[in-house]
Amino acid sequence: MFGTVLIANRGEIALRVARTCREMGIRTVAVYSTADADSAVVDFADEAVCIGPPAAKESYLNVPAVIEAARRTGADAVHPGYGFLSEDPDVAEICAANGLTFIGPPAEVMARLGDKAGARRIMARAGLPVLEGSAGTRDSAAAAAAAAERIGYPVIIKAAAGGGGRGMSVVHEPRDLPAAYRRTRAAARSLFGDARVYIERFVETARHVEVQVLCDRHGNGVHLGARDCSVQRRHQKLIEETPAPGLDPAMVERMCRAAVTGALATGFTGAGTVEFLVDGDDFAFIEINCRIQVEHPVTEMVTGCDLVREQIRVAAGARLETGDAAPRGAAIECRINMEDPRRGFAPAPGTLAEFRPPGGPFTRVDTHAYPGWTVTPDYDPLLAKVITWGPDRETAIARMDRALSEFRIAGRGVHTTTALLREILAHSRFQNAKHSTSLVQDMFP
Amino acid sequence: MFGTVLIANRGEIALRVARTCREMGIRTVAVYSTADADSAVVDFADEAVCIGPPAAKESYLNVPAVIEAARRTGADAVHPGYGFLSEDPDVAEICAANGLTFIGPPAEVMARLGDKAGARRIMARAGLPVLEGSAGTRDSAAAAAAAAERIGYPVIIKAAAGGGGRGMSVVHEPRDLPAAYRRTRAAARSLFGDARVYIERFVETARHVEVQVLCDRHGNGVHLGARDCSVQRRHQKLIEETPAPGLDPAMVERMCRAAVTGALATGFTGAGTVEFLVDGDDFAFIEINCRIQVEHPVTEMVTGCDLVREQIRVAAGARLETGDAAPRGAAIECRINMEDPRRGFAPAPGTLAEFRPPGGPFTRVDTHAYPGWTVTPDYDPLLAKVITWGPDRETAIARMDRALSEFRIAGRGVHTTTALLREILAHSRFQNAKHSTSLVQDMFP
Repeated sequence: MFGTVLIANRGEIALRVARTCREMGIRTVAVYSTADADSAVVDFADEAVCIGPPAAKESYLNVPAVIEAARRTGADAVHPGYGFLSEDPDVAEICAANGLTFIGPPAEVMARLGDKAGARRIMARAGLPVLEGSAGTRDSAAAAAAAAERIGYPVIIKAAAGGGGRGMSVVHEPRDLPAAYRRTRAAARSLFGDARVYIERFVETARHVEVQVLCDRHGNGVHLGARDCSVQRRHQKLIEETPAPGLDPAMVERMCRAAVTGALATGFTGAGTVEFLVDGDDFAFIEINCRIQVEHPVTEMVTGCDLVREQIRVAAGARLETGDAAPRGAAIECRINMEDPRRGFAPAPGTLAEFRPPGGPFTRVDTHAYPGWTVTPDYDPLLAKVITWGPDRETAIARMDRALSEFRIAGRGVHTTTALLREILAHSRFQNAKHSTSLVQDMFP
Repeated sequence: MFGTVLIANRGEIALRVARTCREMGIRTVAVYSTADADSAVVDFADEAVCIGPPAAKESYLNVPAVIEAARRTGADAVHPGYGFLSEDPDVAEICAANGLTFIGPPAEVMARLGDKAGARRIMARAGLPVLEGSAGTRDSAAAAAAAAERIGYPVIIKAAAGGGGRGMSVVHEPRDLPAAYRRTRAAARSLFGDARVYIERFVETARHVEVQVLCDRHGNGVHLGARDCSVQRRHQKLIEETPAPGLDPAMVERMCRAAVTGALATGFTGAGTVEFLVDGDDFAFIEINCRIQVEHPVTEMVTGCDLVREQIRVAAGARLETGDAAPRGAAIECRINMEDPRRGFAPAPGTLAEFRPPGGPFTRVDTHAYPGWTVTPDYDPLLAKVITWGPDRETAIARMDRALSEFRIAGRGVHTTTALLREILAHSRFQNAKHSTSLVQDMFP
């Protein structure tokens, strides 16, 4: 097992990873930008190294600085968290070249999966239903228009190197395609350094369901059930839950088995997520993510499995322990963002004069925030994740509403999405599991 | 189901009960002394009523004030928590006379169980092994000495009306008995208003194991496994866990079944705890508590059952729902007390300049404290309970140590037992489950 793990991330996920490392007896190194010098993980980790100024490009995306910090602190392995360096195959290669284990799949697998259009082809060959779309990227507006014509409108243009719900445009009519094509390419180049895009059918009232998979380096793969992430605002997930409610369990089981088949077909190892769109009784592959997801705690709550621990074990060469982890009950996660819903979800950072997270039965909070912490506008707006469990979905939802009702967050200029989340939880379409990815749009047009 | 529940308690348990009430859609009324005007439950509850000055006799033990608060706020039921009024049969009667449901067993059952010597007789008749001792109370030093002579030294003198580890004296030699007898009677009169005492064999290296039972008003009873509470200092529990480690599972199963038999024999209803001393492969009944216990969360963590919810349901006349709650994994609880272990565990209250409870995977915190809250010396020193879960005991312990390592509590004059708890967790006798109730005494003589 590793002696020291460097955590190449920030915020709640950096603390989340450090917690599991400590439980495993692994020494932790936090890296931080000057904006995060007072962050909880800097305080918690065994050692902390400043790697640059606030701008992510100069700190959390600054690969030489991260590698140098690992070298100086004697780290054996690097955990990338999510976002930042987590899906960059070059980083995995550079780690290997420096004698560091990258806690994720091999570089070549990451490269294969990072090309979303290519991943679609692999999955289709492995027998998975794939959402109708262009077989590869489309490198001119005319080629994109031809693909869209064949697929049928509405379509969605997506960055081949994208992820996290960014770099995508929905096109309802042919005349809007050229502009959307150019806009998406520009966004893709700016966000991911890669302008290539592909085209998919856009399903307006689908459910976004993803399967958590774990694969070791000995050819074993298992799934840990499906998460529903249909509550989204502009492709950003707000609420996630497991099991996926209101779906035919036999269909979900087929989808979970397909996810394992697909992941193994790509050579995937570690903890990954295979994403699907579900429309009635049909499911279609969208993409596969080769990192820990923001919403992984709901899976942990129902299975009892520590996914970060499994990531670390698999990266160290251990075999999967397929325990008796039959899932129990239902779990739900709400993302508390520092945004002002009444002002178009504008970032609302500031100093947390008051910060009292909820507690009590079957309630988990993952956060890097604490009273007095000043949130800067440099990074994503995620302030805390609240996760609740119940023997059934109804209890988990009631518990979440209770937990959100006791969360106290206050400070000058500080706003959060808490009240909005409670409105969604109380909505009849959500409560009856009759919602789709259009729910938030329909509620707040 | 009840429309409004009044919570006749304070601190973490009052908030714990209020949380479940809210999840069940029940309106909550908090009562508080002037010392607790700024407490978390006063903020959280739907309504709060001040019932008197800090002294418990004039507030939390002030029955007329509690009943009047219930009347004024339209409460249907009273939840007594633990301590204070929770084991007073008169309170259950007064509630009934005022049209309020007391969330606990019927008054006559409480009276029967409150007499610890009488409870021993009932259990013996029901076929439970009972720790060797006097058949009833002993009302003179000579009678107590005769009983002790028959039982054999060392013995323990216990208040018949006692509980919570208070009002008891261990006697190693006959010559110490008369003084100990008088001391215990005086303590019993002052603590419980009832001087009567009884004598039991004192087992120096036993394990303290208790069984959680649930009984409804329709004659159904179930157990939810056993908790080990052997880590005690002066009969005060510090660490509790489930399942009870290092014991023969067949013996534990027999003990759990005996606990249900015994509870049903007394006419018990609600959530109760049947306490045993375990010595090798033998178990012997000590007492039965007819209220929620401080350590109930460990049972909740492994079973998924919300015990407060079941208490409320049973009190409302519902039948037990014996779900598929096969226990999963292991859970452990540490009590964080505001005491200074380096100064003889002297109370160390003060204002919490800093208070950052742990979070993350499989970690639960039950606390009424928050940053800025001033703890007064009026009540017990319990500041927070940290509960962790793991697929096995080793993981639960490692997780607890991680959780305690991130707890930040600071303030002028403020001390806690956190570091002491970590020392106990790391002790080989504890880690190997070879400990007994003498562990803490042996570690800190």
